[in-house]
Amino acid sequence: MPRRTPEPTDAETASKSARTRSRLLDAAAKVLSRKGFAGTRLSDIADEAHVQAPAIYYYYPSREDLIEEVMFVGAAAMRTHLAEALDALPAGTPPAVRISVAVEAHLRHELEISDYSTAIIRNANQLPEPVSRRALAEVAAYNDVWRALVADLEAAGQLRADVDPAVARMMVLGALNWAAEWWDPERGSLDDVIGTAQSMVLHSLRP
Amino acid sequence: MPRRTPEPTDAETASKSARTRSRLLDAAAKVLSRKGFAGTRLSDIADEAHVQAPAIYYYYPSREDLIEEVMFVGAAAMRTHLAEALDALPAGTPPAVRISVAVEAHLRHELEISDYSTAIIRNANQLPEPVSRRALAEVAAYNDVWRALVADLEAAGQLRADVDPAVARMMVLGALNWAAEWWDPERGSLDDVIGTAQSMVLHSLRP
Repeated sequence: MPRRTPEPTDAETASKSARTRSRLLDAAAKVLSRKGFAGTRLSDIADEAHVQAPAIYYYYPSREDLIEEVMFVGAAAMRTHLAEALDALPAGTPPAVRISVAVEAHLRHELEISDYSTAIIRNANQLPEPVSRRALAEVAAYNDVWRALVADLEAAGQLRADVDPAVARMMVLGALNWAAEWWDPERGSLDDVIGTAQSMVLHSLRP
Repeated sequence: MPRRTPEPTDAETASKSARTRSRLLDAAAKVLSRKGFAGTRLSDIADEAHVQAPAIYYYYPSREDLIEEVMFVGAAAMRTHLAEALDALPAGTPPAVRISVAVEAHLRHELEISDYSTAIIRNANQLPEPVSRRALAEVAAYNDVWRALVADLEAAGQLRADVDPAVARMMVLGALNWAAEWWDPERGSLDDVIGTAQSMVLHSLRP
């Protein structure tokens, strides 16, 4: 009697494995953002991802490893997304335009991967150091990109004298990060949020 | 043989009880901000407050009741503090000055009670509804005060046309709230943070 489904090829197995891994990460981000580190159980993640809980161990050796990966993947994706948006700009793009592009890149990506964003916002400072180490390094690198954006604006003589650059950077990032906590796609347009944010950020910094 | 300490009067007992209750709340805010709702254990709170864990039940019927009180007390204190700062201003104080005073009141109080602030920031959207209900009502009332501040600025013709008032309010609150996540009293002056924040907020809103 023939088998009802053909044996998968190696490539098919790898692809299915990658999809399951990705579904587990998405599910873990969702549970982590809602229940916090201590409250996130593998059984909740399994339910959310529609897999059997023990199957998770095929992909991640422990609950901590899965959560560590969620935090890292979310933070790294933010940094990569911002870097790509800035790299795509022509050489000589004025600092203010680069900041405006960075505001849009931050908001679009943050709200698109909102479970990862809120997972990071709510848990980054609650995790044991081994679980947060790689994610916090990505967050620090992300901060460095913004530090350079503000420094370039200052070097161009476009940062107001009454604005402390370090405080300004954290205020802008706070305003942008917080959007993941309040933005509701059913109650307003993302383009309106981005437009207002770009205008507010540039006016908050420039003379 | 005389007792070594006199019997406390009723007032002394009440006062000691209030102090213990206050110490429990402070300890719970600290643990909650670091470990999250699911990870906050009464034994951790007891250690932090230097009381025996079972003694907590003399003050709060359950872990949830204590956490509910922490969230409510923290949110209510923010709202009361802002209301008092605004009420102290003379009638006819211009909307921009009122916003500037509100920025300072928010930052000073938020960073002074920083364990409560981060407990709320990190956990408000992770709690079961009965535990967050009173706190979220206070947060909503706090938002209403800011809604009125921005509306008054707009009515005075001092809100830029390209700024959506609702988005602007949430961006400002996000920038201010986030300070509890990054501000380190050992690395900078609170007055500098407040000065930069006031300048940024007003410039971000006005023509």
